[in-house]
Amino acid sequence: MQDKILDISRRRGITYPSFEIYGGIAGFYDYGPVGKRIKENIENLIREFYVIDEGFMEVECPILSPEDVWAASGHLENFADLMTECKKCGAPYRADHLIGRHIGKEVEGLGIKELEEIMEREKIRCPKCGGELDRIYSYNLMFESFVGPGRDKKTAYLRPETAQTTYLAFRRLWEIGRKRLPLGVLQIGRSFRNEISPRQGIIRLREFNQAEIQVFVDPERKDTNEFGTVSKTKVRILDKNDRESNMSLADAVEGEIIKSRLIAYHLERALRLFETMGINTRKLNLRQHTDEERAFYSTDTWDVEFRSGEFGRVELVGISDRTSYDLKAHQNLSGESMEVNLEGRRFIPHVIEIAYGIDRSLYCILESCYVEDDRGAYFKFPKRIAPYQAAVFPLVNKDGIPEKAEEVFKRLKQARIFSLYDRSGTIGRRYARADEIGTPFSITIDYDTLNDGTVTVRERDSRKQERVKIGELVNRLFLNFNF
Amino acid sequence: MQDKILDISRRRGITYPSFEIYGGIAGFYDYGPVGKRIKENIENLIREFYVIDEGFMEVECPILSPEDVWAASGHLENFADLMTECKKCGAPYRADHLIGRHIGKEVEGLGIKELEEIMEREKIRCPKCGGELDRIYSYNLMFESFVGPGRDKKTAYLRPETAQTTYLAFRRLWEIGRKRLPLGVLQIGRSFRNEISPRQGIIRLREFNQAEIQVFVDPERKDTNEFGTVSKTKVRILDKNDRESNMSLADAVEGEIIKSRLIAYHLERALRLFETMGINTRKLNLRQHTDEERAFYSTDTWDVEFRSGEFGRVELVGISDRTSYDLKAHQNLSGESMEVNLEGRRFIPHVIEIAYGIDRSLYCILESCYVEDDRGAYFKFPKRIAPYQAAVFPLVNKDGIPEKAEEVFKRLKQARIFSLYDRSGTIGRRYARADEIGTPFSITIDYDTLNDGTVTVRERDSRKQERVKIGELVNRLFLNFNF
Repeated sequence: MQDKILDISRRRGITYPSFEIYGGIAGFYDYGPVGKRIKENIENLIREFYVIDEGFMEVECPILSPEDVWAASGHLENFADLMTECKKCGAPYRADHLIGRHIGKEVEGLGIKELEEIMEREKIRCPKCGGELDRIYSYNLMFESFVGPGRDKKTAYLRPETAQTTYLAFRRLWEIGRKRLPLGVLQIGRSFRNEISPRQGIIRLREFNQAEIQVFVDPERKDTNEFGTVSKTKVRILDKNDRESNMSLADAVEGEIIKSRLIAYHLERALRLFETMGINTRKLNLRQHTDEERAFYSTDTWDVEFRSGEFGRVELVGISDRTSYDLKAHQNLSGESMEVNLEGRRFIPHVIEIAYGIDRSLYCILESCYVEDDRGAYFKFPKRIAPYQAAVFPLVNKDGIPEKAEEVFKRLKQARIFSLYDRSGTIGRRYARADEIGTPFSITIDYDTLNDGTVTVRERDSRKQERVKIGELVNRLFLNFNF
Repeated sequence: MQDKILDISRRRGITYPSFEIYGGIAGFYDYGPVGKRIKENIENLIREFYVIDEGFMEVECPILSPEDVWAASGHLENFADLMTECKKCGAPYRADHLIGRHIGKEVEGLGIKELEEIMEREKIRCPKCGGELDRIYSYNLMFESFVGPGRDKKTAYLRPETAQTTYLAFRRLWEIGRKRLPLGVLQIGRSFRNEISPRQGIIRLREFNQAEIQVFVDPERKDTNEFGTVSKTKVRILDKNDRESNMSLADAVEGEIIKSRLIAYHLERALRLFETMGINTRKLNLRQHTDEERAFYSTDTWDVEFRSGEFGRVELVGISDRTSYDLKAHQNLSGESMEVNLEGRRFIPHVIEIAYGIDRSLYCILESCYVEDDRGAYFKFPKRIAPYQAAVFPLVNKDGIPEKAEEVFKRLKQARIFSLYDRSGTIGRRYARADEIGTPFSITIDYDTLNDGTVTVRERDSRKQERVKIGELVNRLFLNFNF
């Protein structure tokens, strides 16, 4: 399956490695024309879920941000891997991974000195060439650059997450939102992590796409009136101790497994969003971070994971109670107050963060929607995710058929529906091409069209065909809002 | 006007300087919640114009790109300003600007040695402190960084334009587009220029947003069948010699002022797009690059300029015949062929580039749509640009009116219409708040609503009010496609 997905992905333009003509660099991918349409659809769904349905705001902040931001957030000090390199061949290694594999034991969390001691004691050498390994050092995963010339030059970093850039403007957002909590703020955009050796295609990129939502809340009210609408939803949970169980969200909150109703609510929203995207929900589970893994300031952190046939557990979204940690940190370093005054109480809001990986979601959509049957390989994308809504085919290239087909195509364009026009090969071949990239409807214009103004509409999954009047096409197939 | 625009912009959340709590850095701006909605609308209009109407593709490529890319493109060598700094106070200056101002003569194009000679002869000192100026050096405007650890480390740059990253994948795009010309490829995204001292708000940013379209064409056919649809359009032209004239596009092509019908066509499309965005077309003109200013490889380059009350001439889009320069350059450095075979002829396609500045377009929309009348200051945004389509007001907060208003608000949400809900203050105050950010319709739910199911719809510009049935709201006001 994976090979077929990769083949379609590259041949039809979903994603492919960047800079191929210069040999490529691990961790960078292009979105091709089809992939970009899908990515756009994913982002629009997220936007609708949070900006329209939840009433949150959306902002866009710079990628390149000054050192202070990352000093306050702790990234400058802590966003690092411990590394060593082979003195002979130069191969770089994450020290904890190398040592852990060698001694068959988890060593995450150990310091440089302890790791060097093990490395020496166990006589660990370069797995590639047997060369001696160099001293272990802390390698920061942020990309560094400089803003401005000469003595004015300031150190800056490509953001490793959007979250911090959202926090910086909290005072403004608080005013713009007219001083109410909860205040939800979405930011969709690129982030960067200078991974030592990224693998797994678009699952682990050095330049990647996030949609991160910061919900600023009253620390005394990590709750929502909407909890009742989701409380009965059954979820598969892996708790802190890796125990799996099925239970309702109400029970998970009652049993104090999920620490707040607000986190439980947003876990359900995320599951619903993934379902809308076409991700196979039977392959999703909620996983609670263990005490060791959770950031020290967080009181509860959950991931929604997808069990990928190819990559194992893939974290699609992280939902975390970050308390007042970040706002406090920026208040301390900048000297600007992050306190709010709500009905006479003064406090620094807490943050519930919902952090989606967009590239990973796209991959899991591909894996979930991939189908092979007698007609070959294709994607059963939901309409809202499909790169194009329709493909228009003139049956033959004569007798006024192409003109009529172009008229139909133009109607779809005028209704702002993304569509394809395909005039070459047999109709069967054209169906296959449209199906391969998950086009929900194929519309054929034939001799009957010239007589009665109807076209053949063929639905992708059922392959059922129906005659539809040209004048009714747009309303029938594409404008099905639920008023 | 400018002060009022800035005031609304910051207070309501259109744009504001980034990193304010850390003192800010020139050339970086946030899009707030209202600005982000407008920016999104601008990008969607561009997408519809080019992807739907013109049938182009859209791609998304990385921002951080390896050195080879910028060596081939010429940016590594030429994308630089000549700089000097004060030895005493450290103030940085663009040498040509400083010297030009001092001697009252244009010195652009002179080399380091010539400029240093003038500087010495004219005894030019630091304008700020009178200190001695340092040697002039070439300052590259690309932000530099490094990918990967240790000896694997590769130099990379934040792209100064999206164009090059689109060219890299030309072979793939050619295949994906099934080997046809013209092949148009849109890329919307961030680019970066490490300006020495950026000014003018969002007109000149260090991190900015572009929409760049590369139209790959047969060098023997820089033409379009659609030219007839635009040929009569009258345009205001500033030619190479800064002579202004009004003429039709047909005459401009005939008179060999605009060198190809394809460029003329795309100039008209750009004008039409700006009009759709709400930019005052009476303030737009076409300006041809002079022979000195035009890149050496380009045979013809045009800008569409907006005459801003605040910033003078603002370049909104550049349309340029880049010939085969870029594809050839990448072919030469990478060794990968960029040649195509079309009906037996082998050639490297030429590129017509259409490069929009999104931040600038947004600013020009603000300036064009700003109105002051008896009700105060507000923006007359076209519906497609307005951040929110409607504002919903319950007349009072009792007697079942809020519940009814929320029902109406929910209907708009379900139809995926971005709307506001505002319950506080007098209706007049709420109209003013909705108008200020250009909301086309304000919908009030009152006691009559409870009886007859109608609401008061007030249109922003005319302030006319009308009773509309709730069930007809969405279709009447928001679904006006031109089928």
